[in-house]
Amino acid sequence: MRSDFKRISGGVCAPKGFKASAVQVPIRKLKKDLALIVSEKPAAIAGVFTRNRVAAAPIEVCKAQLKKSSLCSAVVVNSGNANACTGEKGLQDAWAIVRETAKTLGVPDSQVFVGSTGVIGQFLPIDGILAAIPNLCASLSRDGGGDVAEAIMTTDTAKKEMAIEFELEGKSVRIGGVAKGAGMIAPNMGTMLAFITTDINIAQPLLQKALSAGVQKSFNRVSVDGDESTNDMALLLANGLADNALIAEEGDAFERFQAALEFVMVELAKLIARDGEGATKFVEITVSGARSEHDAEVMARTVANSSLVKTALHGEDPNWGRIIAALGYSRIDFLPEKVEIYFGDAPVLKQNFQIVLDEAKAKAELSKRDVSVRINLNLGECSATFWTCDLSEKYVEINGSYRS
Amino acid sequence: MRSDFKRISGGVCAPKGFKASAVQVPIRKLKKDLALIVSEKPAAIAGVFTRNRVAAAPIEVCKAQLKKSSLCSAVVVNSGNANACTGEKGLQDAWAIVRETAKTLGVPDSQVFVGSTGVIGQFLPIDGILAAIPNLCASLSRDGGGDVAEAIMTTDTAKKEMAIEFELEGKSVRIGGVAKGAGMIAPNMGTMLAFITTDINIAQPLLQKALSAGVQKSFNRVSVDGDESTNDMALLLANGLADNALIAEEGDAFERFQAALEFVMVELAKLIARDGEGATKFVEITVSGARSEHDAEVMARTVANSSLVKTALHGEDPNWGRIIAALGYSRIDFLPEKVEIYFGDAPVLKQNFQIVLDEAKAKAELSKRDVSVRINLNLGECSATFWTCDLSEKYVEINGSYRS
Repeated sequence: MRSDFKRISGGVCAPKGFKASAVQVPIRKLKKDLALIVSEKPAAIAGVFTRNRVAAAPIEVCKAQLKKSSLCSAVVVNSGNANACTGEKGLQDAWAIVRETAKTLGVPDSQVFVGSTGVIGQFLPIDGILAAIPNLCASLSRDGGGDVAEAIMTTDTAKKEMAIEFELEGKSVRIGGVAKGAGMIAPNMGTMLAFITTDINIAQPLLQKALSAGVQKSFNRVSVDGDESTNDMALLLANGLADNALIAEEGDAFERFQAALEFVMVELAKLIARDGEGATKFVEITVSGARSEHDAEVMARTVANSSLVKTALHGEDPNWGRIIAALGYSRIDFLPEKVEIYFGDAPVLKQNFQIVLDEAKAKAELSKRDVSVRINLNLGECSATFWTCDLSEKYVEINGSYRS
Repeated sequence: MRSDFKRISGGVCAPKGFKASAVQVPIRKLKKDLALIVSEKPAAIAGVFTRNRVAAAPIEVCKAQLKKSSLCSAVVVNSGNANACTGEKGLQDAWAIVRETAKTLGVPDSQVFVGSTGVIGQFLPIDGILAAIPNLCASLSRDGGGDVAEAIMTTDTAKKEMAIEFELEGKSVRIGGVAKGAGMIAPNMGTMLAFITTDINIAQPLLQKALSAGVQKSFNRVSVDGDESTNDMALLLANGLADNALIAEEGDAFERFQAALEFVMVELAKLIARDGEGATKFVEITVSGARSEHDAEVMARTVANSSLVKTALHGEDPNWGRIIAALGYSRIDFLPEKVEIYFGDAPVLKQNFQIVLDEAKAKAELSKRDVSVRINLNLGECSATFWTCDLSEKYVEINGSYRS
């Protein structure tokens, strides 16, 4: 089914009518850190936000904007400073960015959204940011997607963007996406920054529905360290310029869009896991044979979040005991004696605790850059896949000194 | 209140009527790995066991024994092999150890309990173990407490034992305890091996009640890596030789015993956190000003389990933002703007996000071996303390190669 989603370049600028830019302001020293995405026609917008009780100022602002109009012309994002735990002044700063951008672009205040990522508890260098906005707006370009991908990076080591094109009822529709996130990534909610653009013509409630469902199967299924950020958000903008007949209810067209969107989001999610802080391996964990998708998802997540499993994978140690122990504390009911475990194509454990581990074969699978762990519960027909990375000494090194 | 619990030596052999021994069997190569604790008079026994759905064979055996008689004459424990995920043969092996020990000591089968810790998914070298039991029983000594503490160690770097003495209605009562656990320690349930002996005279239901309550405030409040073992157990033996009037109902005597027991268990729990795999710091996290003890406990646990907090502490980085972010995803309702945070005596964050962090002072607190993090929610009167350690490169190194 997915084979007809054609990959194209351009990231968030790939869909019709989107431009982007990025500039350097006095937050980080060595790279662009303030980004702008603009839709020439006000786009329907959907959002998913962190469930962290300590939500950053930009999260509050976006939630308020969504309630007002659910139309969006621009998204402004900075990296290097989270604008979280900054109280009233933090909120004022975020609103000031909204107003200055709206004024410069000549759009209503209600159509500008903001995002931040970085260190908690420091005020934004707001004067520098406001002073940079005219230049940011003047630099907008159809080629700006990559600049946004770079500007929102913090400890990320690689840009995370992608775009696809597909046919819908004779029209060509595009979806582009950009994400950041390498640490503080947890499998509940937004989990990072992601901005997705599309030129599809769709009613806002369905746009929100597609985003919320997609997040469950993509960003909520990656995990780097189990920590949940104060700033996570995923925004999805649809400006309608693909000129397809408005999707106003569920049906074939909606399902096709949802599948395409999920494809983009899963690819972005995998890029995040692949770039986990200190990661030397990309790990795909699949639990099958479960009684429900929920069971499979919880168990895959528990294995993915186990420090002992992640360090064993780092050490290329086929220590399946830690995997079954993690399944055991997932609080999901299952029969341990029915469990089967594979590393890649190498079987390790068969039913009734039959250990069929071939150390050399298992080591060979685990020595790859991309590792797959497959667990069959042999209880039902449901499955779920989760993406994570190994836990390395480098993770500790990075996070022991991030602030400094 | 606790000042009149006099610390004494002897570990599990400190209370009257207990002996212990340890020998080397062909499991581990360099140290004693099979231990025995014996009460000369059958003791009332209470137990708390892992909630991991994948429970090891010795867990199943102990649960069955407890249902039969709740009397115990002997506990046999091996390290280096968990006897978990070993199916029917694993159970047979555990029962064979029970029978051989009972026969050698001349006590009923129902009065022998077993425990194991180590690698999952390998069969015990059962012939070697059975052959060693006569020698193990012949070596029993009033001085054997330390041998047990050593024999149950796996990745532990230090023995964990303690004993106290206190007066109860004119009688001298003793409690001794031994524990192991450095990795795969999580804050739910048993979380490690702990064997506690006492010569108090108490009815079994009250003994179980005291143990279960004590576990909640001690072993369930330490965390090294958030993983929960297949083999966790805490056993408490009371042989009555202190000759106090039988404690058959709740009241002053029971409360005094419970306080003494909790004191011993908390000290053992702290020893476990202090010896966390790769730990360079012992960390005490206290959440106060909570609406309930449950709220305080969940929040302290969430902070203690955050990889980002633990790496920051390792790096001696006063990164309070990660602490408040962890509070935020604890799913407990609170007001972020009321939170106050201290590192030791150094205030870091006051109400309304007033950052009072003095970097030099905070660094000085964090550079200590014992670090305290105090969080005041300013919402209520309840508090809870949790113990953990930092997350170091060494943890990754140890766990990347444990099996080999």
